[in-house]
Amino acid sequence: MAGPGEFELIREYFASHFQTGAQPAGKPVARGNAAQSSVELGIGDDCALLVPPAGKLLATSVDTLVADVHFPAAADPYRIASRSLRVNLSDLAAMNAEPLWFTLALTLPESNAEWLEPFARGLADTARLFGITLVGGDTTKGPLSITIQVTGACERPLRRDGAGSGDHIYVSNKLGAAAAGLPIVLSDLEPSAEQRQQAEDAYYFPEPQFSVARAIGPYASAALDISDGLLADLGHICSASNLGAQLDLDRFPIAELAAAMDAETALETALTGGDDYQLCFTVPDEHLSAVQQLKLPISAVGRMRSVPGIHCQLNGQTWQPRLTGYRHF
Amino acid sequence: MAGPGEFELIREYFASHFQTGAQPAGKPVARGNAAQSSVELGIGDDCALLVPPAGKLLATSVDTLVADVHFPAAADPYRIASRSLRVNLSDLAAMNAEPLWFTLALTLPESNAEWLEPFARGLADTARLFGITLVGGDTTKGPLSITIQVTGACERPLRRDGAGSGDHIYVSNKLGAAAAGLPIVLSDLEPSAEQRQQAEDAYYFPEPQFSVARAIGPYASAALDISDGLLADLGHICSASNLGAQLDLDRFPIAELAAAMDAETALETALTGGDDYQLCFTVPDEHLSAVQQLKLPISAVGRMRSVPGIHCQLNGQTWQPRLTGYRHF
Repeated sequence: MAGPGEFELIREYFASHFQTGAQPAGKPVARGNAAQSSVELGIGDDCALLVPPAGKLLATSVDTLVADVHFPAAADPYRIASRSLRVNLSDLAAMNAEPLWFTLALTLPESNAEWLEPFARGLADTARLFGITLVGGDTTKGPLSITIQVTGACERPLRRDGAGSGDHIYVSNKLGAAAAGLPIVLSDLEPSAEQRQQAEDAYYFPEPQFSVARAIGPYASAALDISDGLLADLGHICSASNLGAQLDLDRFPIAELAAAMDAETALETALTGGDDYQLCFTVPDEHLSAVQQLKLPISAVGRMRSVPGIHCQLNGQTWQPRLTGYRHF
Repeated sequence: MAGPGEFELIREYFASHFQTGAQPAGKPVARGNAAQSSVELGIGDDCALLVPPAGKLLATSVDTLVADVHFPAAADPYRIASRSLRVNLSDLAAMNAEPLWFTLALTLPESNAEWLEPFARGLADTARLFGITLVGGDTTKGPLSITIQVTGACERPLRRDGAGSGDHIYVSNKLGAAAAGLPIVLSDLEPSAEQRQQAEDAYYFPEPQFSVARAIGPYASAALDISDGLLADLGHICSASNLGAQLDLDRFPIAELAAAMDAETALETALTGGDDYQLCFTVPDEHLSAVQQLKLPISAVGRMRSVPGIHCQLNGQTWQPRLTGYRHF
């Protein structure tokens, strides 16, 4: 059944939440925050026209979220939008970039106002919260899938290939909430209201770690966001930096939801569970005290070392997880 | 069945065709053409790091191609890649932007070397042809779908909202080849070898009109690429410019494949068929002779006018198509 065409769809549901109209030539979009001031022409033409910030690098990243792979197809569209944009923003945060613009490629089985309205609202609310502007998009018919590309401005990039042997390994906040909460999000389990809240917040409202990234920017040698589990993602720092790592798990920062499980499963969930979007970063010895003085919500969890591989120690003994990270195929 | 993980997939099939490795900090990617010189860090980190060209606008556009909606799922992956990148490049051309970077978000039902190898090769060959560099991507598991975002540098953008009443309407080359050829592409029809060649070239190798856009850049008042059929796309110029249009169909440039059909169907196909990716642009009276002197493969097909709507004339009589443009939903 034919609903409104692509153009009406975009106009109706996104224009009402975003500043989408193509402006008359020579009249730039009204200027709000720093991000919007760099948009010369938004949605509605063959391309968006953007004014890149002078003297800065651009950082850009793209992620696709497929229904029933990366989120439950039947989930609240407002929350799907929140999750979709936040996991992309997390890549900007991990690079220590400030949000500028994003595009949305939305594939939908059908034109559906009940779905599009809350989705557009969730996207707009999330964009406003993080100061990023929607500048383009495409809407196609097909199995539900959301591809977002974010672009930010970057002065002091945090790459994953800069770690040195002996650097201290940190993670932000606590790990394991998203993985421990996933069964709650996906099922009709009836946990406590507080547990459900924690699980849904971790899954649908992960917090891109812009503040931590900004603060550690001058001191960290490498960083990334933990999307596939700490062991898998720390492995990327190791291989990009041609190093190994030693983790000390005795006081590992395990999120409350994961800590409710038995000790072994809790630790394993915190180390291998995906979707936390916390930062993992490394700090050279000479910057250690500077980082400690920042009083950030971060924990030192080990050191980089020249021997390849990741070696975990718990209570003075070698510890091995049964699983390592999320496999996409 | 678990194949190689996401990271190995990308590395294997794209690294062999693209310059993908993250470079050591401070050592930029070896500099080839103008586009590559602006890549500080390519695929392999949380974000790509790009050096925007000084003093120019960035033009960016994203398009999704869904299997069996925008291309036959069983088509040669090399050709799918060609089509996917070319239709995106067409948006840059239509804006009069020069290609810089693109990202690929690829959703695949399974990890499949026989599919990925020719796809990556097709993408790399097409990218090389148009001087655009792959700087990031995401590979997810799901129904086959390809989202590409292209970014270019733009000094003299051709927007769709700049047309004036009385401006001359032009199209590049000839129209209708893709729509007329689609039944050949999609079926086992046995046309002449020449017809098959024309149909497949039009569908899988549409030519982004960079040369025409560059040449008319100083003279055109508005432009776009014809992806949904001339009548639909000219309608976008009309609404963005708050004008109508009058088309004179007496010597309309109909592509050979379409011209082989009966006259009425041929004209209708040329006017309403999608996928041609030719340019439609408008030229103010004062620049008409300058544009005519360019000796471009373009045809004047009508004038913009202040009365809303698109009015077509054939042999002195009003002409109405039975269909207008492609509906996405």
